[in-house]
Amino acid sequence: MLDLPFLPFCILLGGLGFVCVAFVSAWCQHWRGGFAWDGSAQMFNWHPVLMVTGMVVLYGAAALVYRLPPTWSGPKLPWKVLHGALALAAFILAVLGLAAVFRFHNDHGTPNMYSLHSWLGLVTVLLFSCQWLAGLSAFLLPWAPAWLRALYKPVHIFFGSTILMLSMASCVSGINEKLFFSLKNGTTEYKRLPAEAVFANTLGLLILLFGVLVLGALARPSWKRPDADSPDSRQ
Amino acid sequence: MLDLPFLPFCILLGGLGFVCVAFVSAWCQHWRGGFAWDGSAQMFNWHPVLMVTGMVVLYGAAALVYRLPPTWSGPKLPWKVLHGALALAAFILAVLGLAAVFRFHNDHGTPNMYSLHSWLGLVTVLLFSCQWLAGLSAFLLPWAPAWLRALYKPVHIFFGSTILMLSMASCVSGINEKLFFSLKNGTTEYKRLPAEAVFANTLGLLILLFGVLVLGALARPSWKRPDADSPDSRQ
Repeated sequence: MLDLPFLPFCILLGGLGFVCVAFVSAWCQHWRGGFAWDGSAQMFNWHPVLMVTGMVVLYGAAALVYRLPPTWSGPKLPWKVLHGALALAAFILAVLGLAAVFRFHNDHGTPNMYSLHSWLGLVTVLLFSCQWLAGLSAFLLPWAPAWLRALYKPVHIFFGSTILMLSMASCVSGINEKLFFSLKNGTTEYKRLPAEAVFANTLGLLILLFGVLVLGALARPSWKRPDADSPDSRQ
Repeated sequence: MLDLPFLPFCILLGGLGFVCVAFVSAWCQHWRGGFAWDGSAQMFNWHPVLMVTGMVVLYGAAALVYRLPPTWSGPKLPWKVLHGALALAAFILAVLGLAAVFRFHNDHGTPNMYSLHSWLGLVTVLLFSCQWLAGLSAFLLPWAPAWLRALYKPVHIFFGSTILMLSMASCVSGINEKLFFSLKNGTTEYKRLPAEAVFANTLGLLILLFGVLVLGALARPSWKRPDADSPDSRQ
């Protein structure tokens, strides 16, 4: 493939991640009534913003830490801490995002956990919590033996990409669902494609583009740490 | 990772693909009124069945052809023809699946191409058509020079996985959308989680499991053809 340097790609990707967060925030602020933490529809609006920021953009940043060339030499511990801290920040935002939608549902007497979007979203966050705890136990805490780290590392890498894919599918199904809910009575119907629909559909495609670029960067052989396939993954 | 032989995995995956097709067919037959090709709601029902069968199950089978150990030695042409033919069959089903939903919309005066699901689905099928034509031109027809094949091969591989991911997200958003449409007036609402909702939500998760297993199998180093990274991809 054409040789593309990682750092310019990373800057482009950072810009795209920023655009995703700006788009989802602008959608909720401009068309959906803004933000509050009071059980109202304004509280629901934190859900898409926190999920996109946490489970897509911050998660993508955490996943790409080991593609930065400075991580390839010297002590690994600072980079492990950065990887784990970014993932923890992503997880905290995801939990707050779940709290926003559960509180909104509960305050409006709406059942939780019935749609495919909600099932998939919860599976994704549960897998992420297992991934984070297992990663902490195996790679950051000092007592895991080298053979266990070597055994678990490809599993951690596989689930790392899988969780991002599931996040992308969750975001797309959630945006689609929210637009069908919101754009009906008292507003221009979704099927008439008002400006909000074009804007939020575009947000969905941008999220997928961001996720696909992260997964492509993770899979690209020339961007992997040269010793990445070595069984020695000790600190 | 634990050493898992490819062929038993392949049989398991084939079984899971069969279950996906059986589930989507049973959903449309048992709860959505069955099938017809007359512009009615029964015509719409071909859409999920053809998309899941084509863009997920047959597409996954096409993607995995080069993971079969017999493809690693001997002439490549028969395997290239099999890979291209499975992909072509997937593409034909996808086009028929699109025809089913466009005809249903047109006969009911419903606009086409407004939802995020429809945008994503069309992008996915368009990317797939480009992928198929470029694959045919570069790898099956005899006139592409070796340097062009070597340059294009990683791009083809990258878009191969990307299109499957986009298909998975399209399926999940489509099933979610269809359940919100169908389970309201005159039936048990989606939010009360009737048997149809549990069944179709499960279908969505099974499609994701199938797709993730295909992507995992494609990424697994020990299942790749030993010469897969060689620049020589001539027939």
